[in-house]
Order: sequence, then structure tokens, then C-alpha cells
Amino acid sequence: MKILVINPNTTERMTRAMADGCRSVCAPGTELLMAQPASGVASIEGQSDGAIAAFHMLELIRDEQRTHAPDGFVIACFDDTGLHAARELVAGPVVGIGEAAFHLASLVSARFSILTSLQRSVAIIERNALAYGFSGHNFRVHASDINVLDLENESSYAALADKARKLLAADKSECLVLGCGGMTQWTARLTRDLGVPVIDGVTAALKLVESLVALGIGTSKAISYAYPLTK
Amino acid sequence: MKILVINPNTTERMTRAMADGCRSVCAPGTELLMAQPASGVASIEGQSDGAIAAFHMLELIRDEQRTHAPDGFVIACFDDTGLHAARELVAGPVVGIGEAAFHLASLVSARFSILTSLQRSVAIIERNALAYGFSGHNFRVHASDINVLDLENESSYAALADKARKLLAADKSECLVLGCGGMTQWTARLTRDLGVPVIDGVTAALKLVESLVALGIGTSKAISYAYPLTK
Amino acid sequence: MKILVINPNTTERMTRAMADGCRSVCAPGTELLMAQPASGVASIEGQSDGAIAAFHMLELIRDEQRTHAPDGFVIACFDDTGLHAARELVAGPVVGIGEAAFHLASLVSARFSILTSLQRSVAIIERNALAYGFSGHNFRVHASDINVLDLENESSYAALADKARKLLAADKSECLVLGCGGMTQWTARLTRDLGVPVIDGVTAALKLVESLVALGIGTSKAISYAYPLTK
Amino acid sequence: MKILVINPNTTERMTRAMADGCRSVCAPGTELLMAQPASGVASIEGQSDGAIAAFHMLELIRDEQRTHAPDGFVIACFDDTGLHAARELVAGPVVGIGEAAFHLASLVSARFSILTSLQRSVAIIERNALAYGFSGHNFRVHASDINVLDLENESSYAALADKARKLLAADKSECLVLGCGGMTQWTARLTRDLGVPVIDGVTAALKLVESLVALGIGTSKAISYAYPLTK
Amino acid sequence: MKILVINPNTTERMTRAMADGCRSVCAPGTELLMAQPASGVASIEGQSDGAIAAFHMLELIRDEQRTHAPDGFVIACFDDTGLHAARELVAGPVVGIGEAAFHLASLVSARFSILTSLQRSVAIIERNALAYGFSGHNFRVHASDINVLDLENESSYAALADKARKLLAADKSECLVLGCGGMTQWTARLTRDLGVPVIDGVTAALKLVESLVALGIGTSKAISYAYPLTK
Amino acid sequence: MKILVINPNTTERMTRAMADGCRSVCAPGTELLMAQPASGVASIEGQSDGAIAAFHMLELIRDEQRTHAPDGFVIACFDDTGLHAARELVAGPVVGIGEAAFHLASLVSARFSILTSLQRSVAIIERNALAYGFSGHNFRVHASDINVLDLENESSYAALADKARKLLAADKSECLVLGCGGMTQWTARLTRDLGVPVIDGVTAALKLVESLVALGIGTSKAISYAYPLTK
Repeated sequence: MKILVINPNTTERMTRAMADGCRSVCAPGTELLMAQPASGVASIEGQSDGAIAAFHMLELIRDEQRTHAPDGFVIACFDDTGLHAARELVAGPVVGIGEAAFHLASLVSARFSILTSLQRSVAIIERNALAYGFSGHNFRVHASDINVLDLENESSYAALADKARKLLAADKSECLVLGCGGMTQWTARLTRDLGVPVIDGVTAALKLVESLVALGIGTSKAISYAYPLTK
Repeated sequence: MKILVINPNTTERMTRAMADGCRSVCAPGTELLMAQPASGVASIEGQSDGAIAAFHMLELIRDEQRTHAPDGFVIACFDDTGLHAARELVAGPVVGIGEAAFHLASLVSARFSILTSLQRSVAIIERNALAYGFSGHNFRVHASDINVLDLENESSYAALADKARKLLAADKSECLVLGCGGMTQWTARLTRDLGVPVIDGVTAALKLVESLVALGIGTSKAISYAYPLTK
Repeated sequence: MKILVINPNTTERMTRAMADGCRSVCAPGTELLMAQPASGVASIEGQSDGAIAAFHMLELIRDEQRTHAPDGFVIACFDDTGLHAARELVAGPVVGIGEAAFHLASLVSARFSILTSLQRSVAIIERNALAYGFSGHNFRVHASDINVLDLENESSYAALADKARKLLAADKSECLVLGCGGMTQWTARLTRDLGVPVIDGVTAALKLVESLVALGIGTSKAISYAYPLTK
Repeated sequence: MKILVINPNTTERMTRAMADGCRSVCAPGTELLMAQPASGVASIEGQSDGAIAAFHMLELIRDEQRTHAPDGFVIACFDDTGLHAARELVAGPVVGIGEAAFHLASLVSARFSILTSLQRSVAIIERNALAYGFSGHNFRVHASDINVLDLENESSYAALADKARKLLAADKSECLVLGCGGMTQWTARLTRDLGVPVIDGVTAALKLVESLVALGIGTSKAISYAYPLTK
Repeated sequence: MKILVINPNTTERMTRAMADGCRSVCAPGTELLMAQPASGVASIEGQSDGAIAAFHMLELIRDEQRTHAPDGFVIACFDDTGLHAARELVAGPVVGIGEAAFHLASLVSARFSILTSLQRSVAIIERNALAYGFSGHNFRVHASDINVLDLENESSYAALADKARKLLAADKSECLVLGCGGMTQWTARLTRDLGVPVIDGVTAALKLVESLVALGIGTSKAISYAYPLTK
Repeated sequence: MKILVINPNTTERMTRAMADGCRSVCAPGTELLMAQPASGVASIEGQSDGAIAAFHMLELIRDEQRTHAPDGFVIACFDDTGLHAARELVAGPVVGIGEAAFHLASLVSARFSILTSLQRSVAIIERNALAYGFSGHNFRVHASDINVLDLENESSYAALADKARKLLAADKSECLVLGCGGMTQWTARLTRDLGVPVIDGVTAALKLVESLVALGIGTSKAISYAYPLTK
């Protein structure tokens, strides 16, 4: 099966880091396609960044659908930018890394903590969770206050791990969700250091899309995600 | 005060109808600015339409902010497309016509019904309501199954009124919300025919923005709606 | 239009302070009527104070309706004492200052904090918010532990501002709601000192009632707020 | 122990019917006191009736507290009029018949239906349930559309039973709650005819107050229900 | 009436302590039956302990139903282990001590705190509360981090009382619920020391079952709690 | 990887049907282990069936863990019987087929309908959904009123498909969840006949467990699912 992982921002380095993560977990039969829009924003930090990125991402999805016809799609921004819109364009499953992490964390813990980059993203993530049907009683969302593009630096790791440890204790949580695509590379290290499951949305979403494709389950085209009307 | 009412779709006829509605209720001191993006979609029927419209609307807001510096903004699409993103771009208040109708309906009724155009919009409106902080226990959302661009025809009125009457009875509701910018012109007639308050989001949002500007209350620039980061 | 602002307690000084606030924001065409019951309680601090005040306020509304026939009504107690009952008595819109503040705060911030006078009022305000259809996920209610009648003293300001600053930080809130009619006079000063929107319910409710009257939207007389049955 | 059952309306016949019901279930050691306000409303049908009744009931409670010092209190109106206010006045437990029914129904069924008299009371009861901490996912509230004062007529029974049977089927409910003090006398007959538990709030509240008094549990005087402040 | 109080664990000392508590509050006409399974777990600390205990308890209930035909049943584990299953087996009311405490605490306080033994039980109790129809907005659950079997030692009292005092202050709560059957013996002492109502689930459940039996209200056998199907 | 799929009831035919379904979708590297308890109940229809089945299933898990050390576990009963308890016993992921279906349905539809066998299971499934963190706003649960053991007959298909079609229309749903392990064999046929995604919990759970194992994510052993305490 062909799965397209889309980094909705224009920073190639981040796309490559995601590709590395995905390659290490994807099934033997999965052909991994990576893509990012040619224009848009270098990182998604807030709602207007997200709206711009979503616009370019939707064009990209239309193009990729025509040229590569992927069987499933991952939207690799923890805000799940443009997720509902993307689902209208294709028949295959489309999974955002934010929602992927929410769903998997719910399967292995009774309470989990989400650590995103900036405080301004917290309300976005909370709104998304409500929209996905969650009530919010078993998780809390926090900000690391480290910029998205700085997250990949080795020097950021200690601060990130320390923040994570403290919020797990304060929330009495038993699982950590990495709430930003740029934290992917720290997943294994944090898992070792924290002693609880650590969930990276990018690889989580990839496995969910693989699962849906293997099960023959696509996006419902019945009502909310029917193809756009032509006018 | 200068208030910019933005029709996020490209259909001028709809912008003019909104302008008529707004002019009939705006305060003496209000200078009404109307705008619509030059490109985008002719009507917003679903999420991908909304994402495209939001992108062009955000550019429009940046332009208008530079050239006219409005004191407040109305986003005249019941899906409140691009609302959170728009709030990041300006310091004045930004109110969507969907949320405006929710808030005013809550003030005059214990239960209200929302009638939107298409079934595919129902989930969008329900998600928005949750995101605004409502729990959903005192309203229901329904579709008229009449296309946005047909709504303005005289021939659609009877079907619309009939649908409204039936859902008010079924929901045991005491107020009707018009869940689509294209229903604006029927507000007064439906109010007479149904015998309950009928709320049009466009004029509702205009009055809310006027109120906020008069009170000196703008969009909080503290966290979630801080100006976009420059990169 | 004639708008009646009712202070449900018997303290004239408080009524006058509210009148000052209202005059500074009301529309040119608004005739402002102020009223307070001749008997009842000097301040509303808790539920039994509220029940007594509501009783006298309802008599007052009946009187004023007969003598002045206001077009709309403001109930100027943050507990929104007697709000639902008052709506049964009249056809014009009736807005409580508590609900007014909730609705406007939702339009300019993703999370807000409410600062009321006494801890005993916190549960009342939380219950009201649920009753208005809010889920409570985007606000927190706190007490200043300063008595209603002391709030107007200059000497209380520093303590109030300090409390507000701390709870905004703790809640990671981006907007402050003044949860007591007696805090009205500090609105502008707190706005300057805190750097976020500060919402005073009295003026908020006044503008909402003006808006509803301008839109021709009254209290629905269909079910819940139908006129009282005669027996 | 002395338990005061207060009918908040002024209709003596209703008070006597309640007394009959209470006498048939009260514990051997319980001294039953019945009371009703000398003035107020003949029946509580809506919010303004409730506010007037609450005012007079609070005076009655103060009087009775002084003269008879009851150990516990029942407020015998399904809207639980003045409940929170009453709790401030005394140290003994105060239970409303609406909340009593909610709590007991939750103990014997996974889903229950509430049948009140008039449609205008439905929103009141739903709001109360939210205020008591219920989420509303396991019950539905309906109106019989029979006036409170007509409910006691034999001729009303067939219509009431028919309505109850239909709504239990429609709700897929397994328990019926009688949502009005005037339905008390039909409890046993409906239980036989419907084949599910039928809960009358008046006797339910009486047994809950007896239980609380026996356990030595009174109303908390710590915060929300502290005695009213003297001014 | 005959009421069976079941300690679902096998520790006799705990059963005796519960019997002492029950005897001190039960009605004159109540015949108190105490029982505990012959095999199972010595204490219930977590979900698998609970599942094992529930299995043995269900057998015990079948036996007791045959031999003693109790009129009502108390399940004396704060996790309410096997509660829903037990209700299928009998026609009398079955009340868990966890739910009993939730219901009574709601009647005497606007906000309450639950103190259970171990952190691992917190998620169980929160899940139960949701399942009973509560929304969770007016209580918080905490762990004392004292093992169930140590709770009865005099030496544990000071730590328990201190913990309780701190969490009441932090939660701004006005009532304490003892969230573990092993805390029963401290009820009166904590009530004196804390100055707020302290609710012990065991005696609370006993009085609720007495009340339901007195009212003639049993478990609904209509749908969810119908007798098990024979296969 | 070794994945153990446990049918918690004792009906071998059902285990074999599940095995067939699982084999058709499992990854190349997955070693599929099937198991069912030697004693217990022939089918799980209600809570006491579930409690008995859970007890025997927990023993089975302990045995299998010792003898085969599976990497992950599927509990193949839509009620997710014993799920939380099972998670305490092992370090690998444990997924119930009910929760699996909830999570996958949320990824491909904005609203879904669950069709279980008997009405008595509806409340169980709704309670579980709340416990998993869902709010319930985007799904509805229904009963087919066909017994679990009859579901596999060809003659049941037409009734099942008809019921499904009707409830999708009534709920305005866009995805069907098969709410009972015994419906597995109809998944593909219903998908063709209904034109919307149809989700079978058994295969859904298998793919989720495969995904979690591939990602190195096990059950958190930190708090709620820590190993049982030894006493």
C-alpha cells in the first residue's frame, strides 16, 4: 500500500526527520511517500499559520491524489491542520498526528499528558480533542515554551525531559504524548528516561493509516466528508 | 466606528444582501465596510470550501487592516471559517456569524434550533459550538437540504418555513437560528410566520462587534490570539 | 429605546455607580432607566440574599413594565438572580450581567478567568454557566475574598489587581471577567494594568440588550418564558 | 427525629396528599411536620411562580427553625424551588423532591424518564439536574401537558399512564420519575400498571432526609451553604 | 426488612468493622446480614483484585438470595465492584458504597472531595462516577497513599486527617467522602476534627437500601438489569 | 510478533470465526494465538455474564502470559469485559474490540452508529465509551434484538442489514460499528450493501495491537495499570 505522509510546513529538515521515524516502523508492504507544500509557512505556530498551511496542503493532496493515488494519508502537524477538509478530497483514510496520539494514548493509560511547543497551541489542541468526540476528562495539555524549530537541538532535550517529568507528576499521568511534529526524534530517549509510554503522533498516525487501509476502511463519503460540490 | 463585514465567498449578490441587512440595524455612528475576496469559492459548502475561503479571507483582512484599519470585524459565514486565525491578525474584535447567533439565541430562549443549508454542514456547526465552550444540551442543528445559492429564491421560502415549523415542534424549541448567510433576507418574514424569535447571524454579529468596540473590548493578544510569530 | 437597568439590591450608591458606567457606553438613542427595589437586601452575598432580592425585583419589574414599558432589561447582579423568572414577565429581552460577561468573554479569548467577591458565590456562578449551556472547559471562577460593599474602596484596588494578575497566570487565561457588580468602577484601570481585556458585566449586558432591541429580538414567549399562568 | 416537609405552594389539599404519602413510609421514630406558606402561589408552574414561592418558603423555614427546630427539611416542589437558599438557613439536611428522585432513580435503573406536568417546567428540571452534578446522559424529561391542579383527578390517570407508557418505550427507559408533587397519589398504581419502578419525589426526599439525619450528616456550613452574612 | 451487607474481600476484620458501623445507624426494623466470600482477595486494590472479588461475590449473592432472600443489598467496596452484575441477579435494590457516598455528598455540599487509599484507585472511581451519570464538575478524587489494610491502625489517623485537611483546602471543598471501606471507623472522629460533613459509604449505602426497601422500590428488571438469560 | 486474541466466552465456533477474520487482515510477521476460557459462559449477554467471563479470562491471560508470552492482547467481546483488569496483568498492550471500534470509527466519520445484539447491552457500551474518555456527542448505540448465538445464521442477515440501514438514516450517521463479536462475518457484505464504512471490532483491535507493538508502546505500568499488589 502507498501512504502519503504530508508535512504541512515547508521545512524540509522536518520532513526528513519524519521520514526517518516512519521508515523505522512501517510495515514491509508499505510504500512511504513524503511530501510538503512548496509554499506556505516554515512552521505552524498558531491558527493563521495553520490556515495558510492547510490551503497549500489541500492543493498538494489534490496533486498527489492525481499523480500517485495514495491509499491513505497522514497529516503531520499536531494541530491536525486542514484535517476535515482533506478528508473531503479523497476516499482513503486521512489521519492527523494529533488525533492519532489521542487515540493510542487512550489505549494504554487511564490519564495522559500532552506536551506541545507553545502555549498558543494549547487551546487549539483542546478544541480539536473536543471535536474528535473526547470529553477531556482524562488528559491535560501543556506547553514546553520551546519554539518548534528549536526542538530538534540536542540542547533542548534536557529542558524537554525535565518539563515532561514535572507535568507527569503534577497531572498524575501515566503516559506522555509529544504534541508537536518536531519532537519525533526524542521519542525513544524519552521513553527510556521517563519510564512511561511516550507517544509520537507521526508514527502513531502512520500505523493507524496502515491499519485502516489493511482493513479496507476508508473515509466515509456519505455526509460530512462527501466530495466537495462542484458549482 | 468602522466595522468590516467580510463575506468569505466570492458571490457579490450575497455580499449585497448582507449589506442591506446590516444597514438596517447598524448604529448611527457605524461606518459599514463590506468586502469579499477576489478569488476563492462561490459558496462555502463543506470543509474544503471553507479552508480555501479562509485562506483568501485572511489575505483580505491583512489588506483591509492596512488600508482601512477597521475597528471590528464580522466573518459572514455560518461555519465561522477562519475565525480563530483572523483573530491573530488584528487587535479589534472579530465575531463569526455562527457564534453570534449561538450567543444571542442563548439570551432569549431555553432551547433553540439551528437550520443550516446542507447536512454536510451540521457536523461543522456542532464542532464549532463545542469549541466555543457550549455543551450542546440546549440546541439542535438541522439541515434544510436547500443549496446555499438557491436559498434566496422566493420559491424556496415556503419549504424553508415549513421545515422550520416542523423542527421547532420536534425539538420543542422556542427560537430559530438561521444557520446560513444566504437566509438573511427571510429573517423578518420567518419571525412573523413562526411566532418565535428568529436570529440571523449576520446582523447579530454586527451588533456584537459594535457592542465590543463601544465597550473598548478587543481580541485578547495575550496567548491564543497573539499576533503570528515572524520566522 | 428605553432600557431598564435594575440593581437587585437596595444600596443606592451601587446603583449610581452602575448608572455612571452605563451612561459612558450607551448608544445615543438609548434612554437609560435605573431602578432598585425599595426593600430587600443591601448586597447579594449568597443564595438566600439572592432569593429575597429576586422576589422584590420581580415586583419592581411588574411595576416598571406598567409605568415605563421598557424595551429591554438588565439584571445587575453577577449571580443573575431571578433572571429566568424575570423573562416570564416581559416580552422584551432580559439579560443578566453574569451571562453577558460569559458571552462577551467567549468572543475575545480562548480562556478566561472570573473574579467574584466571595468564595460562597463561586458555586452559584458555575451552576449558572452550566445552565446557560456552557460546558465550563474554557473558564475558571475565583473569589477575591473582599466583601461586596468594600470593593469600591480605593484601598481594595491593589489587592484586587494583584489577585487578578495571579489568577490569570495560574489559569493561563487571556481575559478577566469582573464577577461582581461592585467592581464596575475598576474596569478601565484593570484593563490598563493587566494588559488583557477586562469585562464588566453591567456595561456588557447593557450593550447586549441594546443589540437585541435594535435587532427586534425579544424573549421567546413560546414555552419556557411564556407569561405566568393565571390561576 | 423531626422532619419538616414544606409544600412551597399554598394549596392545602396538596399538602394533605403529601402528608398521607409521607406517613405511609416514614420511620417509626420520625415526627412528621407539614407546612406551607400562608401566602404565595396556588401552584408552581414556571420560574416566576417558583421565585415567589421560594421567598415565602424561606420565611417559613426561618419561623419553623425557631419554633420547632426540625432535624431535617424536605422541599416538596419538583423544581426544587429555593433549595440552595434554604440550605444556607439551617444546619440540618435539606432535600428537594426533584433531586431526591434523580438520586434514587440512578440507583435502580440505567436510564430513567421524568414526567412533569407542563412543558415550561422541562428546562427548569434539566437545568437543575446539571446543577446537581448530573451530566444528563441517562435520563430524559417530558411533559404530560396536564395542569398541576388537575393531576389529582381520577379522570387524569388514564392519560397520565398512557403518556408514561409511551415515553418509557420511546426513551428505552427502565424507571419512571413522577416530576410533579401533584402526582404523588398515583405512585403505587403506576408501579403496578407499568411494571417498572416508579419514583415519587416526596417520599423519596423524606427517606433521604431521614437517612442523613440518622447518619448525623447535615448541610455543610463551610462555604456555599454557610449562614447568610449579616450586614 | 433483611439487608445483606457484603464485604467483597475476604478480610473478616474489615467485615466486623463494617458491621459495627452499620449496627449503629440501622433502623429498628432492619435485620442486618453480613457476608464475605470464602475465597477471593484479602483487599481490593485495583481492577484485577476487583474482578476476582466480583466473581466470588456474585456466587455469594446467588447463595444468599436462595438461603436468606434479603430485601436489599449493600456492596461494601468503594470501587463498587460487580455492582451492575449484582443488580441482574436480584429484584431488591443493590447499592454500592461508592455511589452511595456520591449521592449523599451531592445533597449536603456544592463541592466535595473523595479520599481513597491508593492512586491506582482514582481512575476507577472517576470512571464509576461518570457511569452513574455524574459529570464530575463538583468533586475531585485523591489518594491517601496508605494501603487498605493499614488504614485501620491508630497510627494512620494523623496522616489521614492531615491529608484530608489539605485537600479540602486545595479543592475548596465543603464535604469529605471516605473513599475506601477501611476508613469507616474514622468517620465520627474526622467529622469532629475537620468541621465539615464526612461521609462513609458503608453506612450511607445501608441507609439508602433501607430507604428504597421502605419505599417499595427495587432494581428495575426491565432492560439493563433484567435477570441473566439462560442458555 | 505474537498476538493473543481471546474470546472471553466458551463458544468455539465463535473463536474460529474470529480467527478467520483475524487471519485475513493480520500482518505477515504476526503470529496469531487464539484462546478461550475452558469454563465460563457460552455468550456474554449482560453484566453478570461479563463478570463471570472476565474472571476466567484473567486466569487464561495469566496462563498464556507464562506459556506463550504474547506481545499484545485482544479482548474479543464488544463489552470489553475485564479490559482494565487485564491491563494490570501484562506489560504489552491490551485492546478491547469495543474501544477499538470506537477509535477507528472516529477517524473516518463525523458521526457513527453502533449496532449491538441486545438492548440490555446498550447501557454497558455507553458507560464504556464515557469511561474511555468519549463524550458521546458523535455516536448512538442501538440494539438489533437478535441473540448473540443467532447472529451468525444466514437468515439473520437480512434483518440485520435492514436494521442497520434504518438506524443510519435516523441517526444521520456515516459509519456503522458492529457492536458484537458475533457479527464479524458480515462485515464485508454490510460494507457493500450499506455504502458506508463498516467497522468490525475484532479485526480493528487486532490491527491496533499490531500497531502498538510495532511502535514499542505497551500498557503503562505507572499507576492505574501497575501490576497487582501482592498481599
